[in-house]
Amino acid sequence: MKKIPAERLLTVGIDLLCAAGARRADAELVARNLVDGSLRGLDSHGIMRLAQYAADIDSGLVIPRNVPRVEMETATVAVVDCAHGLGISSAYYLVKVGAEKARSAGISCVVSKHCNHVGRLGAYVQELAEMGLVAIATANSSRHGHWVAPWGGIEGRLATNPLAFGCPRSGRPLVLDMSTAMISEGKIRAILHEKGRVPPGRVQDASGRPVSDPAHFYGPPHGTILPFGSDMGYKGFGLGLMVEVLSSTLAGVALTPRGLPDEYVNGLCLVTLDPSAFGDSGRFVANVNELCAYVKSSPRAPGFSEVLLPGEYEAQISASRAREGIPVARQTWDLIAQQAARHALTLESFDEL
Amino acid sequence: MKKIPAERLLTVGIDLLCAAGARRADAELVARNLVDGSLRGLDSHGIMRLAQYAADIDSGLVIPRNVPRVEMETATVAVVDCAHGLGISSAYYLVKVGAEKARSAGISCVVSKHCNHVGRLGAYVQELAEMGLVAIATANSSRHGHWVAPWGGIEGRLATNPLAFGCPRSGRPLVLDMSTAMISEGKIRAILHEKGRVPPGRVQDASGRPVSDPAHFYGPPHGTILPFGSDMGYKGFGLGLMVEVLSSTLAGVALTPRGLPDEYVNGLCLVTLDPSAFGDSGRFVANVNELCAYVKSSPRAPGFSEVLLPGEYEAQISASRAREGIPVARQTWDLIAQQAARHALTLESFDEL
Repeated sequence: MKKIPAERLLTVGIDLLCAAGARRADAELVARNLVDGSLRGLDSHGIMRLAQYAADIDSGLVIPRNVPRVEMETATVAVVDCAHGLGISSAYYLVKVGAEKARSAGISCVVSKHCNHVGRLGAYVQELAEMGLVAIATANSSRHGHWVAPWGGIEGRLATNPLAFGCPRSGRPLVLDMSTAMISEGKIRAILHEKGRVPPGRVQDASGRPVSDPAHFYGPPHGTILPFGSDMGYKGFGLGLMVEVLSSTLAGVALTPRGLPDEYVNGLCLVTLDPSAFGDSGRFVANVNELCAYVKSSPRAPGFSEVLLPGEYEAQISASRAREGIPVARQTWDLIAQQAARHALTLESFDEL
Repeated sequence: MKKIPAERLLTVGIDLLCAAGARRADAELVARNLVDGSLRGLDSHGIMRLAQYAADIDSGLVIPRNVPRVEMETATVAVVDCAHGLGISSAYYLVKVGAEKARSAGISCVVSKHCNHVGRLGAYVQELAEMGLVAIATANSSRHGHWVAPWGGIEGRLATNPLAFGCPRSGRPLVLDMSTAMISEGKIRAILHEKGRVPPGRVQDASGRPVSDPAHFYGPPHGTILPFGSDMGYKGFGLGLMVEVLSSTLAGVALTPRGLPDEYVNGLCLVTLDPSAFGDSGRFVANVNELCAYVKSSPRAPGFSEVLLPGEYEAQISASRAREGIPVARQTWDLIAQQAARHALTLESFDEL
């Protein structure tokens, strides 16, 4: 690992995406989102995705200059066809549509079609909360991402289907960003590369036996990730199903039939509420502040140094990484440098960093 | 325990609530909701609440003939003042308002003020799903119900803050109804009465030590319930906070200052979507059917007899209790009979049942 300043990674990201064919404004949105993910310690949704996005452009999965288009809309809802453009900039377009409708109608729901990887889901509710809006975001994946077994099952039936919630308060918004599974496939892959063990209760092999060796997860035959909730995993799988219906079924998207290529990577749903539609938005923010202070005023349990609100742990990591740089693995840098070289950009080698 | 037919309990419930002062239509809604809870095996939200509701009417907490009133509304949102009437019939009024607005505007959000106990939250999303609508419901409790510790804390800061989701499909709707805590206080009390042990990972004592003896939970000093998620309880507490903001803060309700009486029991929020606003609702239902069939087609894990969707376990219990009767404890019946006697209704004794 080497620690690289966030600004440097941002420049690399923008340059590579532009070289691969993206418009500069889109490249900035995407690179900023990835660097923000890395800053927060969410490495699976950070700069390690950059090389993948560039490769996806080369393979034709991502068509970087395609722009999202509202396929149908009313005063409150919209279905946005993201036209296989960059997923993150598509998602910011949904944010814009959702915010406009929520501001004029009090509440809105905007869903995607043909959307590529949207990165860190919390980014979108954070953006909406910074505009003074309350938002719930959900994202599913098409069949290729179905690593999560249903409660009591052994074949993947959903992706890790995250759910995010954001609301304004004084200062940084309150942002919850959580997966409805016990672990992401990306983390298991990282554990495999580091020759480590998956913590107990996260994954099972193809026959449904609990395993901690990532090789037993990958098989073949491959195993599955358990839904969030340990011995109450039926709740986590239920949340995952809710995410599935909101993020994909509501937009009119059916399951991809087995054997056919997926038509999208992530389905995204944004439900946005304007607190001023319900009364005084200043009072709303004051009450959220009071609620957060009340939660944090609880004395600490043994072994904890602080009672943290959702997002506060990530904010602490972010402050530290902003000072000290973002840890980047050799493999991540090498993949970025390879993609850069394909587009006649020269990056120094990992050892020269 | 004696097994009592659901129809008999429904009659007892309606008669008692009418005798205590409720209108017959409200008494029917409330008694039906409680009996449906008991049928599903959700005993903490079942007929054991009947005596409490009657006592709450006597004490003046519930004013049974007060009717909910829309305090403010737009085409999409409403704040409903439930005026301390019966919580369950108030909640059905929110369902009616939410459904009308969602049908005309595509999406709605309706929140409560001054609402009493709303019983089983899943009932309201089920009702909306049976109308062809997709719904998310959340409920919080005022400070008296704050049994749940924040992640890393040892004092109660939220109630068990449930979340429900419903959507239409062919036949019975898909209904998820889950608490964001590891266990309800009602279940701990039942374990105390039965001299049992609380399963591991559910509760801690006042100093934050894990305990299984319910007496160590009740103290004094009293302990707390852990948020849903075991070693990832920060997710469950995050969901609980989302529920809190939606169910209470959004309606303009502040935390009750310590020492003052609470102004409500449950805050309720209903977000309702009309799938026909997004496209063909017949296609939506077909896609939900396909999704459910896909989930259930997963082979079973060792130790499971079936892959169950949210609500299917409760439906199985319901079928069995509809045939065989609802198990009622002597204490539950005695409390109902005492309340009945206060209103000049005579019920047979438990032994005569």
